[in-house]
Amino acid sequence: MTANQRGADGHRLDRRDVLVGGLSALGGLAAGAAGGMGVARSGAAPAPAATGEGPTTVQLAEHQRRAFHGEHQLGIMDPPQAHGVWVAMDLVPGADVTTLQRLMRIWTQDIAQLMAGQAPYADFEPEMTATTASLTVTVGIGPRVLGLRGVTAPRPAWLGPLPAFPKIDRLEPHWSGGDLLLQICADSPITVSHAQWVLTKEARTIATVRWVQRGFRQGHGVTNPGETMRNLFGQVDGTVNPVRGQDDAVVWCGSSAPRWLQGGTTMVLRRIAMNLETWEEADPLTRDTSLGRRQTDGSPLTGRAETDAPDLAATNGLGLPVIDEFSHVRRAMPDAKGLADRFLRRPYNYDDPPAPGRLTNAGLLFVAYQAELEQFLAVQRRLAEADLLNTWTTPIGSAVFAIPRGCREGEVLAQDLWA
Amino acid sequence: MTANQRGADGHRLDRRDVLVGGLSALGGLAAGAAGGMGVARSGAAPAPAATGEGPTTVQLAEHQRRAFHGEHQLGIMDPPQAHGVWVAMDLVPGADVTTLQRLMRIWTQDIAQLMAGQAPYADFEPEMTATTASLTVTVGIGPRVLGLRGVTAPRPAWLGPLPAFPKIDRLEPHWSGGDLLLQICADSPITVSHAQWVLTKEARTIATVRWVQRGFRQGHGVTNPGETMRNLFGQVDGTVNPVRGQDDAVVWCGSSAPRWLQGGTTMVLRRIAMNLETWEEADPLTRDTSLGRRQTDGSPLTGRAETDAPDLAATNGLGLPVIDEFSHVRRAMPDAKGLADRFLRRPYNYDDPPAPGRLTNAGLLFVAYQAELEQFLAVQRRLAEADLLNTWTTPIGSAVFAIPRGCREGEVLAQDLWA
Repeated sequence: MTANQRGADGHRLDRRDVLVGGLSALGGLAAGAAGGMGVARSGAAPAPAATGEGPTTVQLAEHQRRAFHGEHQLGIMDPPQAHGVWVAMDLVPGADVTTLQRLMRIWTQDIAQLMAGQAPYADFEPEMTATTASLTVTVGIGPRVLGLRGVTAPRPAWLGPLPAFPKIDRLEPHWSGGDLLLQICADSPITVSHAQWVLTKEARTIATVRWVQRGFRQGHGVTNPGETMRNLFGQVDGTVNPVRGQDDAVVWCGSSAPRWLQGGTTMVLRRIAMNLETWEEADPLTRDTSLGRRQTDGSPLTGRAETDAPDLAATNGLGLPVIDEFSHVRRAMPDAKGLADRFLRRPYNYDDPPAPGRLTNAGLLFVAYQAELEQFLAVQRRLAEADLLNTWTTPIGSAVFAIPRGCREGEVLAQDLWA
Repeated sequence: MTANQRGADGHRLDRRDVLVGGLSALGGLAAGAAGGMGVARSGAAPAPAATGEGPTTVQLAEHQRRAFHGEHQLGIMDPPQAHGVWVAMDLVPGADVTTLQRLMRIWTQDIAQLMAGQAPYADFEPEMTATTASLTVTVGIGPRVLGLRGVTAPRPAWLGPLPAFPKIDRLEPHWSGGDLLLQICADSPITVSHAQWVLTKEARTIATVRWVQRGFRQGHGVTNPGETMRNLFGQVDGTVNPVRGQDDAVVWCGSSAPRWLQGGTTMVLRRIAMNLETWEEADPLTRDTSLGRRQTDGSPLTGRAETDAPDLAATNGLGLPVIDEFSHVRRAMPDAKGLADRFLRRPYNYDDPPAPGRLTNAGLLFVAYQAELEQFLAVQRRLAEADLLNTWTTPIGSAVFAIPRGCREGEVLAQDLWA
């Protein structure tokens, strides 16, 4: 379905005519006479940026664009935006590599345009596209795609559901799995919604929506740049993270990975319910002990500032460890040199309407990126085995995706899968 | 339950001890030794603003505070913030005026503190309170409150469900009604979530959550100040609105209202589903004709700029009206001089996870404020009778609340109800 076909389709207006009288012709003439706006949309509608309208908005928007083309997909090591949505889609039965190619060609073109503030071919609200608000769209590949007829790349052994963590997991199928992932992040929730609508409707003949999860961090422009966000327990969340340009090997797959993943990464999305109602019963000492950091400012219990490295060897006057043996910080802390158990955290909060009789339905979309899934798993196994914070948190969704490398001009996302 | 009682309650930690070993005593000592943080919380925890921590954040925060005390409640004629949540609560069976007084005393104090960036008595995440992000909390009174034993004010005839609009309404009970309303708006979604948690948990022995609706406008700081927001159809939404200081009588109840409402207002919240999937089939001409304004810039079809007044008398060369007889703009436009059918629109978008098999679940939280409910109803009756936009929109929730006047220092919200 193209914009032209839709432009010529008067079905809805016709139906409405039956209800309120024959107005479409009158309305059409009226609007045409009023300002010459009744021009049929043809091909890709130009964004206001290209028409010279609203120069102030355009100036603002130009500072809020991130470049789509490059070695890596964005939405990963670049600074996290205020809002995000994660959409998992399942390919229709009978899909093969041709289906995948078609979808990836459409998404590649649409994402490049949306991130540049230009309206894609089937975008009928180009005015909303003009506000890019640092939009990034990241595309992920789920396990079933590697088994499609005509896909030549072999499926990596790690690409599938995580191993079960029976002590903590209470996974709900409707928050788990998926053939394809769209991660859409921007500093305006309207920009996120609009990109979500354009990209899912473009896919609808090929794929169905499996789940949608929306999340948020601190409001854009409300806190100081670079300030670490807080989760809904009040904890500073995401202090220790690989730094772009310095720790790239932690995140991006290198030459030992299959070609389609070199420059890409692996992604885990865990939906972690956080029980505010029992967390409230924990006093400050319990909270800080469980985390190993102070809720007040995120500093480790052995340090003064958020960025101080926790000193796991420090003991108090009784010879007991200052940072508890079962605190989250100690259990999560890398204990090997090199990459073995480091990864990138890019979490977002969620706060959905509560079930009947409950006060809240809140938690964290825990998004982790790492060159090899094992980097995440090494930590996850320790946390699943024992972490004081598990008292108040429950993983209820889990999904793993492969994130292909970025695109150069003329390339298509994930094209190595069939090349 | 006070903060002190909770601070002394080691139940959760005790339970955890059974799972991972007797750690609470060790952890306690360790944390105490590390930085003297193990101080029991006593009374109202001071916000970081009061402790001298994080001066930069505090400076930023001070520009983002709105004053709670005043003639009117905030969140109405003051500039709309980027994010909002509407929470309806139902009083427990057997509630009487004492119950109401208790709740209103708690909320009055808590709201004043939250808006000032100070942690209320039972706020265990004071760090999150420090980021006020222009927080406002607006309290509304539903019909059943006026019937509570001991409430002396009579129930106004208009305070109840709206009249039915059978041509358009498909109301769902779980989005409708309610005894009490909290409208919580701020420029950070975390601030909204935190205030929601504090205020609903403070009420939980007295009231249960009936429904929660979250909404958003353009991201804070992403568009130009004063720019009208767009809804998810792409339409500029909310151009014509009363101006504070100039049109106050449109919104605030005057001396003809019951005393408890003088300086207050009436509020309607309609949850309006917007069908993006059929809207997509409407071409630009159909869209602009249905609205009576251009989607591109919000200008009326008879004008050039968004703020130009629509000229309903204008005709084209064939003598037909430029602004269609059944366009939204014409049907919604005040046709009387004075206040008779003007009101304040303060809408927010919503975009929730879609039902299985659907692509979207989007719409508008249409929030209207007016001195007399009839101002809204006069327009609503015309729109419900015929409005081209009804083709793509469906009201699925509806609630009416009375908004008491604002508080001076020492007063309690809604105190005229029992005084």
